[in-house]
Formats: sequence, structure tokens, C-alpha cells
Amino acid sequence: MSSTTNQVIRCKGKHFILSFVISLSRRKSLVRCLMMSVNVTAAVAWEAGKPLVIEEVEVAPPQKMEVRIKILFTSLCHTDVYFWEAKGQNPVFPRILGHEAGGVVESVGEGVTELQPGDHVLPVFTGECKECAHCKSEESNMCDLLRINTDRGVMIHDQKSRFSINGKPIFHFVGTSTFSEYTVVHVGCLAKINPLAPLDKVCVLSCGISTGLGATLNVAKPKKGSSVAIFGLGAVGLAAAEGARIAGASRIIGVDLNANRFELAKKFGVTEFVNPKDYKKPVQEVIAEMTNGGVDRSVECTGHIDAMISAFECVHDGWGVAVLVGVPHKDAVFKTSPLNLLNERTLKGTFFGNYKPRSDIPSVVEKYMNKELELEKFITHEVPFSEINKAFDLMLKGEGLRCIIRMGE
Amino acid sequence: MSSTTNQVIRCKGKHFILSFVISLSRRKSLVRCLMMSVNVTAAVAWEAGKPLVIEEVEVAPPQKMEVRIKILFTSLCHTDVYFWEAKGQNPVFPRILGHEAGGVVESVGEGVTELQPGDHVLPVFTGECKECAHCKSEESNMCDLLRINTDRGVMIHDQKSRFSINGKPIFHFVGTSTFSEYTVVHVGCLAKINPLAPLDKVCVLSCGISTGLGATLNVAKPKKGSSVAIFGLGAVGLAAAEGARIAGASRIIGVDLNANRFELAKKFGVTEFVNPKDYKKPVQEVIAEMTNGGVDRSVECTGHIDAMISAFECVHDGWGVAVLVGVPHKDAVFKTSPLNLLNERTLKGTFFGNYKPRSDIPSVVEKYMNKELELEKFITHEVPFSEINKAFDLMLKGEGLRCIIRMGE
Repeated sequence: MSSTTNQVIRCKGKHFILSFVISLSRRKSLVRCLMMSVNVTAAVAWEAGKPLVIEEVEVAPPQKMEVRIKILFTSLCHTDVYFWEAKGQNPVFPRILGHEAGGVVESVGEGVTELQPGDHVLPVFTGECKECAHCKSEESNMCDLLRINTDRGVMIHDQKSRFSINGKPIFHFVGTSTFSEYTVVHVGCLAKINPLAPLDKVCVLSCGISTGLGATLNVAKPKKGSSVAIFGLGAVGLAAAEGARIAGASRIIGVDLNANRFELAKKFGVTEFVNPKDYKKPVQEVIAEMTNGGVDRSVECTGHIDAMISAFECVHDGWGVAVLVGVPHKDAVFKTSPLNLLNERTLKGTFFGNYKPRSDIPSVVEKYMNKELELEKFITHEVPFSEINKAFDLMLKGEGLRCIIRMGE
Repeated sequence: MSSTTNQVIRCKGKHFILSFVISLSRRKSLVRCLMMSVNVTAAVAWEAGKPLVIEEVEVAPPQKMEVRIKILFTSLCHTDVYFWEAKGQNPVFPRILGHEAGGVVESVGEGVTELQPGDHVLPVFTGECKECAHCKSEESNMCDLLRINTDRGVMIHDQKSRFSINGKPIFHFVGTSTFSEYTVVHVGCLAKINPLAPLDKVCVLSCGISTGLGATLNVAKPKKGSSVAIFGLGAVGLAAAEGARIAGASRIIGVDLNANRFELAKKFGVTEFVNPKDYKKPVQEVIAEMTNGGVDRSVECTGHIDAMISAFECVHDGWGVAVLVGVPHKDAVFKTSPLNLLNERTLKGTFFGNYKPRSDIPSVVEKYMNKELELEKFITHEVPFSEINKAFDLMLKGEGLRCIIRMGE
């Protein structure tokens, strides 16, 4: 037997609905205080390509295996822009975008035992249930239950959204929706990190930086003194270069169509620059000539099919490994002579740098804490939440790498 | 100062020319007995596709870094037939084919210190100089100096043949030319093996069996209890299956257009059989359905481009590794969606099972000696050297796996 009483309270400028559940079972009286909906500020994408609108949004409490977190810092990644533009993807609107962020656990739903209010977390666009074949495999991070799903705008528990405005649901984005002061995330998509780590820096490890870094450190695995070619010198490619620097590569060859990128790239350990526009021959031949037959490793971060093929064909026979990171057009076809493979080259792809979100990301944060990994150089801009559309403008202009969005004014 | 006297002698039915070199340097008299040309029986391919002709051939002595060996057993591999047919390859005739064999060192040329007369050796179609970047790499066996060259019909030391008939040169084949009672091979293409190993069995490790076995054990590396698909159940494919059996794979799925192969394949650990002809859907879909998403590893041993693509696309996302072994048509193009790679599949090619001929093949012989590796089941026929054309007939009919050719009558 139990009875429930709801009461609306105001705390730190937010409206919370508290639910007192008085349970009389087992002859003792138990008062459980359930955090209910909270009204917060969120940036809503009402339609494709239109500026986000800051709205008051109701965020429902976390359900089974869910966690509600207060986002302190979020940053903008190309993937947000890609799904905001919705050119070619299923348009899912209205939606709250955002997936690179750092926050603090506010409340947890039923069954959540690993996290508790106050824990510092990074939400991740893909998850780790720890129970499926992928999670049990040492090699995979492509969780069957929580693998990224860009079309889904709801939580998997009940196929409903936790966001609403006047009762009308606002869709989620890749299970994170961090462009909101509070969001609800499946526990399997949250990495519990060192509470001493500055969230305004490590928030960038939620997606792009870990993706590039892991592609090099976990998949390409260059040896000390080796040569590495990086295709695409955006944030992901520069994170891949940072991985090569950390691994001790002696030659890091940056490949980009934009010559302006090279100066910046030097900070990330890039030692040489190749602009395919400067040559008549294919860039794989240019690189092979520069490196006596090919680089030891390559990492492709553009998603352009021609760059993918070049990245594969520029690695040395006998031992070269090419790693594909960039997401291609869905109709793209990778083509190469099978002799390139038979000459003992390896071609691999990676997803989120092969990091398992919960198991591995905390250790990437530690790499930053012990100064092995440099994150400051990725952060080129910062805006308050109210100016989030400026972050979109910067990215559309190709300016800078990461723009941190401060949620607290 | 030195003087040389030549004398022709007859020994064990062969004519040897002995050269006595009397050196008077350093005030002492030194008599060096140099083995010169030897007249032996060899099977000569005079022109493409015509039966080999048993001829008396003069075999010159080994030059710098060369070794002359007496072949005791040789076997026939598809590659011999391929270059004998010379459909599409450069025709190099007259030529002495043969590259799977076991023999005994008869004499060594200048600079050879690792081998001496009486050593048991397996000649290998590709070599290991131990000095180039590939030989120094732990990962590669594609020696810069001695990598297979199917167009070259001469020795690399002086660009001349060691075989002649009435002074007219007969060309070598892949540096081995084992269809001859004696042959001359670069020391870097000879694996010195356990003299207790029966040469009529371990001779098959010279090429095809090691290629398939190594593709699985060295490159695909299936874990105990895993699933492996083998495309093509000829000798190389069955050796790949043997590798999967040795590695402890629990499911070994054989794929072949010839249903008759399955009975034989069971001896090699193949547990299931898929004939692509029996299905309307692509065989990669059939295998994915059989294995809850794909096999852990696949090994492609046919060289057909469609089989290569199927072998890649039938491995599980997250951890699947496909290894290409079969040599394709030179104009073949490998095509796949890059998403298959981005979903964490790995595509690799291998050459001679990634074994370094001199460093690694002796240990493969030991795997046979300690009964880990079974070779007898690969040997389905045996003929005397005089009937070598029967071995070609058997292979052209697709009968059996390996036919051992006994050089001694």
C-alpha cells in the first residue's frame, strides 16, 4: 500500500515537481522523494537548417536505466550540423541536438546502480550495455542495444521522448540531446569520469576528439619512429595526429585541400603537409614517393570516398595499415585492386575510435589529466548558451575546431 | 697465383666436371675442388600448354649466394599449371617449372655460410635476404631482393640461367625450378629443415599448404571456439581449414561451388558446407544468417573477385577479419560499401601465409613432426618423375589435392 503526493517547488531558478510516495508496506513508513519533471532552457531545432530557438522545455524524470543530468558545457560537432541540415537524412524535428558535453548526475531511474547524483559524466552518442556480444567482445564497441541510431528520437525504454513543450514532445538526438540544461540519457551512454577533470575541457572527449585519437592509438597503432598520414585536418583528423604524436611517430603527414590548415596542424605534431591540389598525380603516389614506398599507417578522417581509397593505397606494402574514420555518403563504393591487399596491406574501419564508452573513456580523461593528451588546442571558441547559433555559424564557415557552449550564464 | 685443372667424372650415373684449383698464395698449396656443371634429367616445358619433355639438362654450379640442391621429391601446385598454360601471363619458354619440393644440398657457392652439403632444405618461390626493410620488419615477408618474380627466368646474381641443353639456356621458374634432379636456388630461398622430416611429406610445405595454413594461423588468427568461413576447398583452402582446426575453431564453414569437395573437407575440420549455387541470395547473407550476423574470420582461397567480396562481407561487424589469399585476375576490382569497413570489419591480404621462408618454415615442419599438423591427408597421388605429365592431368581434371613426384626411379 502506498499513496503519492505531488508538490511543485522552485530551486535554483527551475521548477521541480516533487512526488512524495508514502509506502506502508512491511509495517514501516517509507518516504521516497521522486524527482519529477523539470522546466529548463533548451535550444530547439524546429526545422532543418533554421537557427535553434531557446525555449523553456519540460524534461521528464529518468525512467528505468536512465539518468537525468545537468549539462554544464557542451560543444558543437559536425554531426550536429549534419543532422540539423538534414540533407539526405530522415528529418526528425522538432529536436534537441547536441552530443559532446560534460555534466553532473541530477537523478537516476530504476535499476541504475553505477551512478548517483553528483557524479561527473560525459554523455556519449553510442552506448555500452555490457551484456551483448559486442560489449563482451574485447574487439568491438558496437553495442547491440545502444549503438548509435540517428533516426530514433525517443528513449528505448518506452519509445517516448523525455522532452516536451506544452505537452508536445520534442525529439531526442542520438540519445544525448545536450543542447539543454538538463537531459535524460541511458546509463549505458554515460562515462563516469574523474570529478577533478575540468568539464569545459574534457567535454570534447564525448565524440570527435576520442574518435580521432582512438583511431590512431587503438586501431592504426603506429610504432615509435614510424610514419603516419592523416587525411583531413579538421578536429577529428587533428585528434588522429595527436594520437600519432603521443605514439611517437616521427613523420606525421597531413593531407588536406585547405592549405590554411597546416599552420594549425603543426601544433598537433603534423610535420609535413600535402595538398592534393598541388599535384597532377594521385596523392597516394605523392606520399609513396615521399616515404620510400608508403607510410606505415594512415588515418582517413574526411569521409570522401576518393580520400578513403588514397589513404588505403598510400600505405606501404608488407605492413601498412589504413584506418577509415570519416563517414561516407551512403551510396559511396570503395574500389581498389585486390593486389593492393594481397601485398599485405590492411584496411580497417573504426567507430568512436574503438573506445567502449563506459569502460574506456574515463581513461582518456586521465590521459588529459596526466598531461599526455593536450585538449586546450582543440578549443578555439567559446560562447554562452544563449548564443549557440554563433557556434553553428563558426562551423559552417570552417572557422576553428571546437566551440565550447557554456550552459550557465 | 692459382691454376685450375678440370676433369670430367661419372658418379651415381651423373657426369660431374671437377675443377681443381691449386692456389699458391701465402706460400702454401691449397687444393679446392669446385663442383662444376652436372648433367641431369629435368622436365622441360618447351611451350605453353604442351606436355613437359624429360630431357638431359646441364646444371651449372652455384654462383655467389647460390646453392645447388638435389631434389628428392617435388609436387605440383596450381601456380605451375598457371604459368605452364601461360594464359595472360608473359610466356617464358623453354622453362623448368616446379616450386614445391624437398631436397638435399649438394654444393654451395661463394658467400653461403648457413648451408652446407647434406643439409635438408625446402626451396621456396619467394625469399628472405634478411637485410631489407621487409625482412627486418616483424610484419612483412615480402623481401625486396627475393620477392617472387614470375617473369624472371634467370638468377639474380648474373641474370643468367644455370640450366642449358647443348649450350642453349633453359629458363628458371620463380627461382626454384624443382622439376629437375638438380637445381640452383638462391640461399635466401631455402629453408633448412629438420633432417629427420620425411621429404616426401614436408615438400608440400614449400608453397600451397603453408600459404593456407599461415593465412589462418598468422593473419586471420581465429580464437578457440570461434567461427571461420573458408572460400575454396582446394589444397590451399583446406590448409586454411587445417589452420582453423589447429586454432580450435568450433565452426568451420566450407564454401565451394563443387559439392563433391565437402566429404574430403570434413577430414580437414570443415563442419558445415555452403554451395553458393544452392541459394538465390548472396552467400555472405546466407553465412550471416547461419552465424547470427557473420563469422568471426574468413579466408578466401579462390582468387575470384566475387568470392573475395563475399568473404569480406560475411564477417561479423565489430570484430570480423577477412583474409584474402587467392590471386585474382590482374584487372579485377574489389568493391564494397565503406560502411562495411566502418562497422569495424578488417580486410587483409597475405602472401605465403605471412611466413618468412628461412625464419619460419622450419617451425612449420616441426608442427608436422610433433603431429600438430597433418600433411598426409593432402597427399592424394604419387607418380615417378618420368610420369610427371600425369600430375598435370590430375590437376587439370581437379582430381585430388597434391601429387608427389618421386625424382629417384
